[in-house]
Amino acid sequence: MLTASICTIGDEILIGQVTDTNSGNIARALEEAGIHVRSMISVGDAPDAIEDALQLELRRSSIVITTGGLGPTKDDITKAVLARLSGSKGYMEDPGQLEMVHKILKGRGLDVLPINLAQAQVPEKAQVIVNKLGTAPIMVFRSLLGNSTLYALPGVPHEAVGAIPAVLGDILAHFKPESIIHRNIMVYGIAESALSEKIAAWEDALPADMHLAYLPNTLTGIRLRLSSYGGDAGRLEAALEELKGLLGSLVYASEDSSLEVAIGKLLKESGETVSCAESCTGGEIAHLFTSVSGSSAYFLGSVTSYAVSVKEKVLGVPARVIEEHGVVSSEVAAAMAEGVRRLTGSTYSVATTGLAGPAGDEFNPVGTVWIGVSGPRGTRTVKYCYKNDRARNIERFAASALNFLRLYIENQL
Amino acid sequence: MLTASICTIGDEILIGQVTDTNSGNIARALEEAGIHVRSMISVGDAPDAIEDALQLELRRSSIVITTGGLGPTKDDITKAVLARLSGSKGYMEDPGQLEMVHKILKGRGLDVLPINLAQAQVPEKAQVIVNKLGTAPIMVFRSLLGNSTLYALPGVPHEAVGAIPAVLGDILAHFKPESIIHRNIMVYGIAESALSEKIAAWEDALPADMHLAYLPNTLTGIRLRLSSYGGDAGRLEAALEELKGLLGSLVYASEDSSLEVAIGKLLKESGETVSCAESCTGGEIAHLFTSVSGSSAYFLGSVTSYAVSVKEKVLGVPARVIEEHGVVSSEVAAAMAEGVRRLTGSTYSVATTGLAGPAGDEFNPVGTVWIGVSGPRGTRTVKYCYKNDRARNIERFAASALNFLRLYIENQL
Repeated sequence: MLTASICTIGDEILIGQVTDTNSGNIARALEEAGIHVRSMISVGDAPDAIEDALQLELRRSSIVITTGGLGPTKDDITKAVLARLSGSKGYMEDPGQLEMVHKILKGRGLDVLPINLAQAQVPEKAQVIVNKLGTAPIMVFRSLLGNSTLYALPGVPHEAVGAIPAVLGDILAHFKPESIIHRNIMVYGIAESALSEKIAAWEDALPADMHLAYLPNTLTGIRLRLSSYGGDAGRLEAALEELKGLLGSLVYASEDSSLEVAIGKLLKESGETVSCAESCTGGEIAHLFTSVSGSSAYFLGSVTSYAVSVKEKVLGVPARVIEEHGVVSSEVAAAMAEGVRRLTGSTYSVATTGLAGPAGDEFNPVGTVWIGVSGPRGTRTVKYCYKNDRARNIERFAASALNFLRLYIENQL
Repeated sequence: MLTASICTIGDEILIGQVTDTNSGNIARALEEAGIHVRSMISVGDAPDAIEDALQLELRRSSIVITTGGLGPTKDDITKAVLARLSGSKGYMEDPGQLEMVHKILKGRGLDVLPINLAQAQVPEKAQVIVNKLGTAPIMVFRSLLGNSTLYALPGVPHEAVGAIPAVLGDILAHFKPESIIHRNIMVYGIAESALSEKIAAWEDALPADMHLAYLPNTLTGIRLRLSSYGGDAGRLEAALEELKGLLGSLVYASEDSSLEVAIGKLLKESGETVSCAESCTGGEIAHLFTSVSGSSAYFLGSVTSYAVSVKEKVLGVPARVIEEHGVVSSEVAAAMAEGVRRLTGSTYSVATTGLAGPAGDEFNPVGTVWIGVSGPRGTRTVKYCYKNDRARNIERFAASALNFLRLYIENQL
């Protein structure tokens, strides 16, 4: 089995100032490529600690990937440690990265200082992969401690993520990981345990070279990833189709996706539009819609009606309905959805009213939400009850509302 | 120097399925208490890998904190490894955790199965700190490999966070970390490099036992943390007051806080209210306001006007203004702010119109935002230009808008 270790370098991680997302991003990419991550380690900007950790990991794994410590300031010392570890006698200038340093600084309207030029200097034993997103080069050291390869990536998260494809390409050109194919489907509206029960027989009957992973997320539901070790694409596809048949309308996408992206696709295809009216979700649904680039093609707008007066005046929810049924009710959810649809002229609309927390009220426990969806076939409502803290309740309310809207648009309600 | 190592255990971290937030949360707490984190390591659910890592870290640090692998299922093996490592001859039942297991499962309406009862069994050498948030106990093993102490915490993030105060209390009862006091101030509206220049003289004059840390965050600005090693509270307070004097209206809070919380405090004190109108921020500002519990006391509502028709019809922005000045303009930002204030009757309002990305338009580059604030003293607008990707532009637009509103409410505009 081809194994890798990931080593993130920087005091800012050890004092908890930044959360290390590089390790997870790199691990995900390696794992999907059939490379087993043996361990992750974070060390500070101290030469001995870095060298200790790298010595150990290079003995354990054929591939070691580091991030961080490649900046131009005094506390960035990864390069010096790697020069020593690789037995480099000196540094050389990499013309490709030098050109990039000039280009990047010019783009930012900055002068090129000696400290910047030094970024293009690499230990003589390093091979360079040009980093197009920053001044620090990506470096490859081969045959370290015998036969391990070390990839040194910049620590800035978007630069590290940007380096992954080139690093993976180099790995696949020099190593032979297990052949592996993955397929994803996205599921919303069922708990992990219930899902596991529902597909138990199918899962038990999977051939030994196929494996199903459950990857749950509050906002996007459960990503089911089916993997074939050995890589028989035809059998994988067939098993996936069977799984989709079992799950029916619980499936909202046949690739790694999110509810707001899936809804966006449906609306773009049909040329239809959507709006929303939010009480307890307080803008989260609109935020999710508009986080998708190109959403202005189908998302018209939303009203967050926290105050009752806004529900009445802006959305036109009759005071009588609120009085009779309470704010958290099917009737108010329906009136809010209808109100914002009327206001914006959208094809569909979705509305939420509920209690995210910390407390419930005299009528409903905390975690209660009524969702309303309105469209050409009329209005539908549904109620859910969750038991999380305020932040997670808001996320679950928003995701549930998007899923209810998705089912309506798909003609499943 | 008292040092600690953090070891997170679980395959889900190594395959990048979950991002490890436990290490950062624990590191932050340790560092604030004057304990130096030497390294962080993540290993999978494999006994040898766990034992290897713990042996190594116990030799290096007086304190080792683990999270994960304490669940009731077969793949959770941390407890067995710790039993062996501590030389425990058997397990014993902890009555406090047993009671908690019954209480928690009853609260969830679940039967207590043998697998749940096993959660209260701990290696005989373990001391238990009852975990009130989950069924797995927090365990303390003293004098491991001579004189190190190991704390085993559950891996579920909110349970791990919940365990930190008790673990810190135990550490402080048994070890003597450096005496350290921290004070925070929150700053918004200045780049880290410019801030550093502005306070360079003050920082250079700090006594050797005081240290300033810059902790930047897209949404909340820069947290400046001033620490006194040795712990002279009076001198720390005096230095902090001097710093606040230098920074003036850049400072928005004298504790770890956020713009939406700081604004909420101002409004609660004055009994005033706020609303917002969002174009490019698409609901993010409303989401930030409503993420604060109790915000219904001052946040009335918002309109997300993605479509021009919503700007005109709902917010009453005159078509002529849009035609003459373009959607991304001072005039439209002002009209949006005034429109939503009129609509909701709030004391203040804030509005955004801009281009979050991926592309700009013929008039403005991507990253441009106009912000409008309206209130009893009239309307003010400001323009910013950022150069990030869509997601980060949305965050910076929203934070800048909140800060502009904060300055208006504080009578600084």
